[in-house]
Amino acid sequence: MPLTANNAKFMIAPMLSVRNGAQAIEFYQRALGAQVRFRVDGEGGSVVAELSAGDSVFWLADESPEHQNFSPESLGGSSVRMVVTTDDPDGMFQQAVAAGATIVWPVEDQPYGWRVGRIADPFGHHWEIGRPLSK
Amino acid sequence: MPLTANNAKFMIAPMLSVRNGAQAIEFYQRALGAQVRFRVDGEGGSVVAELSAGDSVFWLADESPEHQNFSPESLGGSSVRMVVTTDDPDGMFQQAVAAGATIVWPVEDQPYGWRVGRIADPFGHHWEIGRPLSK
Repeated sequence: MPLTANNAKFMIAPMLSVRNGAQAIEFYQRALGAQVRFRVDGEGGSVVAELSAGDSVFWLADESPEHQNFSPESLGGSSVRMVVTTDDPDGMFQQAVAAGATIVWPVEDQPYGWRVGRIADPFGHHWEIGRPLSK
Repeated sequence: MPLTANNAKFMIAPMLSVRNGAQAIEFYQRALGAQVRFRVDGEGGSVVAELSAGDSVFWLADESPEHQNFSPESLGGSSVRMVVTTDDPDGMFQQAVAAGATIVWPVEDQPYGWRVGRIADPFGHHWEIGRPLSK
């Protein structure tokens, strides 16, 4: 089965909508060791940025509800959570909390076969940090 | 700078909350040529699935508001949009629309240097499909 109609290759990366993107970049640098690959600062202090963290890339941008880009704070919740797979969920979890994240539930062995915990970052996005117990 | 406190490697993948995860899997198979890497069917028809599409991996799961996992339909919007980078945004866009996505704005050359369009999938998640114009 072709990946697309014409076998084009593609990559998918999530773009997190936040309030105060500049602060969010600093948080993800501290929490995840993220590096800034691309950043544009717009009028009024808004930011669009592409970050790399671990083996992955994600984007963040200040929310713009007029363009249907809503922060979790505006919606009262998040429609996408971020799943982090790492050999050291306990260490990454602690680092994120030290950087300012809030514990939703701590890192524990779960009956579905993962050692995993969940945090909310200061911008309302939720992150599950874990590893498969079989590995 | 260490990636984490102890140089652990990690990967990040988004988990999309949806209503009717089983239908969502079928949609992403048609729209993106997604393949199912992992799937668990729970009680009441709920699903958790890990999909691969192009060079990327993402998850989806039926929403569970009691666990702070909200679909865009429940929130009235999405806090994360998905950015697809491909050599053929026009073809992928057409394929997604043919699979049932709604056009938010069509594929066009944008002043910020991308040829890109935006769709809403049937579950309320938004996807921007594009490529840098410089390439």
